[in-house]
Amino acid sequence: MMNFKKYMRQYYPAPKGYTEWAQKDHIEKAPVWCSVDLRDGNQALVIPMDLDTKIEFFKMLCEVGFKEIEVGFPAASETEYVFLRRLIEENLIPDDVTVQVLTQAREHIIRKTFEALEGCKNAIVHVYNSTSFAQRQQVFQKDKEEIKQIAVEGAKLLQKLTDEAGQKYRFEYSPESFTGTEPEYALEVCNAVLDVWKPTADRKAIINLPSTVELSMPHVYASQIEYMSKNLKYRENVVLSLHPHNDRGCGVSDAELGVLAGADRVEGTLFGNGERTGNVDVITLGMNLYMQGVDPELNFNDMPDICSKYESYTGMDVNPRSPYCGALVFAAFSGSHQDAIAKGMRWIETKDPDHWTVPYLPIDPTDIGRNYDADVIRINSQSGKGGVGYILEANYDLMLPKKMREAMGYAAKDLSDHLHKELKPDEIFSLFKQKFENVKEPLTVNGVHFRQLEEGRIEATVHAKYGDGDWIDCVAEGNGRLDSVSNALKSAFDFEYELDTYQEHALAKSSSSKAIAYVGITKPDGSSAWGAGVDADIIRASIDALVTSINNR
Amino acid sequence: MMNFKKYMRQYYPAPKGYTEWAQKDHIEKAPVWCSVDLRDGNQALVIPMDLDTKIEFFKMLCEVGFKEIEVGFPAASETEYVFLRRLIEENLIPDDVTVQVLTQAREHIIRKTFEALEGCKNAIVHVYNSTSFAQRQQVFQKDKEEIKQIAVEGAKLLQKLTDEAGQKYRFEYSPESFTGTEPEYALEVCNAVLDVWKPTADRKAIINLPSTVELSMPHVYASQIEYMSKNLKYRENVVLSLHPHNDRGCGVSDAELGVLAGADRVEGTLFGNGERTGNVDVITLGMNLYMQGVDPELNFNDMPDICSKYESYTGMDVNPRSPYCGALVFAAFSGSHQDAIAKGMRWIETKDPDHWTVPYLPIDPTDIGRNYDADVIRINSQSGKGGVGYILEANYDLMLPKKMREAMGYAAKDLSDHLHKELKPDEIFSLFKQKFENVKEPLTVNGVHFRQLEEGRIEATVHAKYGDGDWIDCVAEGNGRLDSVSNALKSAFDFEYELDTYQEHALAKSSSSKAIAYVGITKPDGSSAWGAGVDADIIRASIDALVTSINNR
Repeated sequence: MMNFKKYMRQYYPAPKGYTEWAQKDHIEKAPVWCSVDLRDGNQALVIPMDLDTKIEFFKMLCEVGFKEIEVGFPAASETEYVFLRRLIEENLIPDDVTVQVLTQAREHIIRKTFEALEGCKNAIVHVYNSTSFAQRQQVFQKDKEEIKQIAVEGAKLLQKLTDEAGQKYRFEYSPESFTGTEPEYALEVCNAVLDVWKPTADRKAIINLPSTVELSMPHVYASQIEYMSKNLKYRENVVLSLHPHNDRGCGVSDAELGVLAGADRVEGTLFGNGERTGNVDVITLGMNLYMQGVDPELNFNDMPDICSKYESYTGMDVNPRSPYCGALVFAAFSGSHQDAIAKGMRWIETKDPDHWTVPYLPIDPTDIGRNYDADVIRINSQSGKGGVGYILEANYDLMLPKKMREAMGYAAKDLSDHLHKELKPDEIFSLFKQKFENVKEPLTVNGVHFRQLEEGRIEATVHAKYGDGDWIDCVAEGNGRLDSVSNALKSAFDFEYELDTYQEHALAKSSSSKAIAYVGITKPDGSSAWGAGVDADIIRASIDALVTSINNR
Repeated sequence: MMNFKKYMRQYYPAPKGYTEWAQKDHIEKAPVWCSVDLRDGNQALVIPMDLDTKIEFFKMLCEVGFKEIEVGFPAASETEYVFLRRLIEENLIPDDVTVQVLTQAREHIIRKTFEALEGCKNAIVHVYNSTSFAQRQQVFQKDKEEIKQIAVEGAKLLQKLTDEAGQKYRFEYSPESFTGTEPEYALEVCNAVLDVWKPTADRKAIINLPSTVELSMPHVYASQIEYMSKNLKYRENVVLSLHPHNDRGCGVSDAELGVLAGADRVEGTLFGNGERTGNVDVITLGMNLYMQGVDPELNFNDMPDICSKYESYTGMDVNPRSPYCGALVFAAFSGSHQDAIAKGMRWIETKDPDHWTVPYLPIDPTDIGRNYDADVIRINSQSGKGGVGYILEANYDLMLPKKMREAMGYAAKDLSDHLHKELKPDEIFSLFKQKFENVKEPLTVNGVHFRQLEEGRIEATVHAKYGDGDWIDCVAEGNGRLDSVSNALKSAFDFEYELDTYQEHALAKSSSSKAIAYVGITKPDGSSAWGAGVDADIIRASIDALVTSINNR
């Protein structure tokens, strides 16, 4: 048993009554996004990015559409200082993008931060100090009033240095470790900071409430946010910002419920990179809006490109189950899922509905540069007829009869189970050809002559042999060409079966003018056997299919 | 811009008023856990597990403490059939563990499932059919009444076959794709199934409400669960179960808010393995309870062992940021985090508080078999004095003066930046020795004689040379031994500095009875230089420290 009594809840819920957010069921509009990839994300890498890589990452963030990008803590590291200088001096910051710099509320650090900003047009100066009970007690050994004064002095210095620089930099304040802070006290500190800045409509202040460490369930955080939102001074001139981490695996929920509760802005990273369990994943947040028909105000049209750049820049891998971007997130291995997806895709094609509604695929993978064939219907030993049928149809233009798909599904399942591997589309096609196409042993037919009888009946003369037997000519009549051939073979070799399925179609995608015929026969025990034949001559194709089905009994 | 208008919200919120759950801020007791690793988890692997591996996985699940384990869909795959038979025939199911088998609500599949169960003592037979709007429309093309009848007929057949087998199997019903189903309709179907089973206090039925695909925000799901919980018939004899997936990255929140809303049971997997983005991660759920002082009723004492077994059984990797179990989830690279952790750890050691409260470490890594040195304080170019100081203290028993930690922190940061790699503890120790211990160039001292003067003053005669200069004897007096040596050196070589820090301590962990002395001097420009000396003779150690600090000017 684990020693759970060692722990207690370390958060402080908002006062009762701040649950208005729970009445809303969805977000109407994307919040302002701020990327902290170059700060929290970079800091959490075993090997932080070098200067050139940071520049490339910054460019990617601009392409994705971030308008606010935290570029580092220039006073804390020479690399981050030089990075900001290079962005400014090489004029790499687009006019519509604001860079954000982080600083502790300590005088020499703030002064160094302003040095780093020299010549920058648009900036957010983000000052923080830790306000949590635990950090006041253990790290700073200061009381509430002293900790508040650190924030207030920092806020004043930001104002003073900005005025001295003749700039209009925007300000952001974070009560760091907000989630371990009493909400009433966090409010007091934030309001004291706002009283210094006196934000106006044309120069709003950002109050950022980080879940530095996720300590509570997400709805507790949401109610804290609602409490802050409803009690902050200058609220109409405050941009209320969230900065969720993911220690309890609820970073996405923190952000989403927090936005419902009044937040205007979210700080996060691509793929949720960040300290420990990571920051909130902005890709998931944006795509969650998209999936519900809301403009994410970010561009993820080419997710594979974003993934590969991210992996090369950071040295981290994209988790195969990471929502919307992982390698496996569209994969359907299970038969019933594949079957439903195939039907849902056909519904979209044939009914052309207003909205995407395919089961098991919350979004169309092609919207973000993924594809159906490689990413969705995948075949392993858990897969069934639906998936195999879809693969053969989508890739090779083969529309198998429904019951034949089942037989092919079993064949694929067995092969995958036996090989202990996933089957790729070309392997499935090979398996189909090997098992079901023009199988010429033990029964072989190498010539048929037809003669038209009266009343639409046809007589077939079939030149055939079985196993090591001699070639013989057998003759029978029937209601059609295939029926007469079948009757001839049955009478000559004593086969017992009923011919019960015949389908054919042209092979549009493959070579020239060939067609494929499918034949299904029922054996005396009620089970089926299947064959297919491919030929430019549809009669020849159907005879090959019949022969194969007999050989597959 | 992305074509967001292609999408609409595909879920159906509960009627208004089902938000009582939002008034609670934490979970009081662990729900019943059911592992679906061998079903959903296995099905989602590119290469599903073979029989022997499944047996090993099943044993691991029993060791972790699961009492309900879904072992597969025996009618859908020969491997799963054989696996269940082997569990039963080789008597591998502990008496307190119930195996669960999944079956579609189709007669031949249910019959095959019961065949597979023959001889099993404790089982849950889990029957499902899809009830969502999209699947009714596109996949089954049946109306609500027809879909409900599939469930009812399935429920009846379960009852009949169980009675015929003379068993007391428990029953579970899932309205599959519940999250895409109108709650009122899901309720109607579940109640119709319950009317068949008429559950009693000693034979409760499980109603499982899967978020087969996560379509809404987690609080919307929670309100749906509350609606179901409050309106299900036979509620006191129903075990209300959740089965969250993670398409929107909110699986953990779905489960947690759902439990607040009335659910008694959660189906999930280790590490969140499962179709697409995965099932809910039971490790995160359990550890989230633990972190708040609630018994998880599962045992994660040896997480590294669970991780390595999981990786070898499934071929999947544990994501380095996966809560509580990833390689990086306790890592602190940032200076301020390291400093706070070091202070928090010292707080725990010195104050022995009732509960764990270390900043940035929601749990003590050693509780789950991780360790501080390798996993927590890690040094890269983002790290600072706190982390380096902690490493030197924890691993090498070096308690550097506070300001010397800063100098050592910069040295480590520079080296990591230069080498572009993380520094391991031994590399930090080497760096310390190289930079700060017994540096003998350009100033070298190879002998000192002391003479006691009156009033406690001491005279030192120092044999020394500087660079390529000659050996000289220099003499001066001072208030103590080190002061007199310092004065002698200053007068002989015209050094300008103030001796301002001296600390020493025994080296308990290292070789025998050695001590280490630290000396800090202030240069005329106000900056500091540092040195350390190690010797059995503390006088010798302090002189070496002084000489090193001078050489480090």
